[in-house]
Amino acid sequence: MAERIVVALGGNALGGTPERQLALVRRTAKPLADLVERGCELVIGHGNGPQVGMLQLATDYAAMHGGGTPSMPLCECGAMTQGYIGYHLQQALGRELRARGIERDCACLVTQVVVDPKDPGFENPTKPVGGFYTREEAARISREKGWRFAEDAGRGYRRVVPSPTPLRIVERGAVEKLVAAGAVVITVGGGGIPVVERDEGLEGVAAVVDKDRACALLARELHADRLVILTAVERVCLHYGRPEQRELAELTLDDCARYLAAGEFAPGSMQPKIEACMDFVGAGGGTAVITSLDRAAEALEGRCGTRIIR
Amino acid sequence: MAERIVVALGGNALGGTPERQLALVRRTAKPLADLVERGCELVIGHGNGPQVGMLQLATDYAAMHGGGTPSMPLCECGAMTQGYIGYHLQQALGRELRARGIERDCACLVTQVVVDPKDPGFENPTKPVGGFYTREEAARISREKGWRFAEDAGRGYRRVVPSPTPLRIVERGAVEKLVAAGAVVITVGGGGIPVVERDEGLEGVAAVVDKDRACALLARELHADRLVILTAVERVCLHYGRPEQRELAELTLDDCARYLAAGEFAPGSMQPKIEACMDFVGAGGGTAVITSLDRAAEALEGRCGTRIIR
Repeated sequence: MAERIVVALGGNALGGTPERQLALVRRTAKPLADLVERGCELVIGHGNGPQVGMLQLATDYAAMHGGGTPSMPLCECGAMTQGYIGYHLQQALGRELRARGIERDCACLVTQVVVDPKDPGFENPTKPVGGFYTREEAARISREKGWRFAEDAGRGYRRVVPSPTPLRIVERGAVEKLVAAGAVVITVGGGGIPVVERDEGLEGVAAVVDKDRACALLARELHADRLVILTAVERVCLHYGRPEQRELAELTLDDCARYLAAGEFAPGSMQPKIEACMDFVGAGGGTAVITSLDRAAEALEGRCGTRIIR
Repeated sequence: MAERIVVALGGNALGGTPERQLALVRRTAKPLADLVERGCELVIGHGNGPQVGMLQLATDYAAMHGGGTPSMPLCECGAMTQGYIGYHLQQALGRELRARGIERDCACLVTQVVVDPKDPGFENPTKPVGGFYTREEAARISREKGWRFAEDAGRGYRRVVPSPTPLRIVERGAVEKLVAAGAVVITVGGGGIPVVERDEGLEGVAAVVDKDRACALLARELHADRLVILTAVERVCLHYGRPEQRELAELTLDDCARYLAAGEFAPGSMQPKIEACMDFVGAGGGTAVITSLDRAAEALEGRCGTRIIR
């Protein structure tokens, strides 16, 4: 049986402008193709922070300053970034595989993720998205649209949205069918488009799902062997950025819990990655790895990265 | 064996703003769900004219007028509309099927379509996209970006792009796998993202592929039993809009060729639909139907619409 791997790609593997993103994604495709070449079943999730922010900002700006085009809700902007990033990724990966003589379907699925409307995240939105506004603009938009704003360290006001826990991947069945049929699948872009279950069916909500948590859920639902979270560092560290910094090659769930409690992992950075790994590993069946993009294949062989085990 | 159907949805089944589009798409989902309920294997293609125009205009406007966000190339705008429209369609169809007690995966695939860089369309771009510019703006952008412009009946200058013939659906394998596994698949949104084959692999080009022609190609590649092109009228007409107007229930390929030569079908409107049907039917294996969205299920039973046969 081929090893089934879910990879979570960080924003550092993508880029700000479309030209830059395309160039970066072509580099990103190489280590991903290495995994396919090793014989893995590969499922790729990715972030969309800069992209969804850019799109929200551009459409809001044009709507507010005479462009005559509508403001786009956050869900729809998220769906657009799935198309945008997915197109670049599937094209780049297809090129890279073809160059190696590997014929595999590379497919990007538009993906919704169910969240609980009673998730505590909805009470206290903290995730900033889009551009900066003055206090007056923020107050006006808040009255008009009900958006929540928070001041961002002297740079102005930014919209904040909830970051609820993902509960279910709506398109899991389609992902499973494609993976089982041998395709490389790109899914849960930007953590997935968050939706809630109403009596009449699914409905989008203005929120952002953490992409590492969405990938952990995906890995659980697909009974993956491994969750690989790719980030800017080769290994998780204790005392990160201090003289006594120490790289970790392996962490048990107990270690993770202890270090989290000790505040070793930065909120919004390594902490959610460790929590996502705990989610997946704690559910049984697989192990997780955190490493850098370039080291992904080596990390799978245990020669690099930080393994998270039961 | 279930009948395999490729449906081409026109822009009239979608809407201008995101709120309007979501409302319209929920209506559109009903006749589509009728087809699933009849036991068909359903593959859906759709247009994106208003949506890609809106997105191109909004991002260009923000880039040109101080928004600080980048201008987005046409390919990437097309990819975004596939995510945007696909999200609405798959959600609406999922709701409608669930309400009928039907459990089916509804999946949208980001889709590239190969075109020939030597296609005559590239010599003479005629398809207008995006917003209106003054003569001076058009001249400047033309110098800066190499875009071609054409004057639009006194309303200003609009960018014109080629509309090349689609040759191959890049993600055909993934579509086939999903359809064979029982999923309803949304694909070739906006006619697909046009790409050309370079030595190093696929590369996006600034063009727009006609969605009816892309759907006809898709239907051929999937060995579909039927191509259903949905539009604003229930039947193709001769002498359309004149007192002697006559509805047609059936057209052979010879009839189509004769009426086309006589100029019976409006360019940019019914003509490309008839040509797309001829493409599919002429390749053998299936029949085509042109009808309105509300009449799709009836048309499949031969009680409405215009059938195109060999």
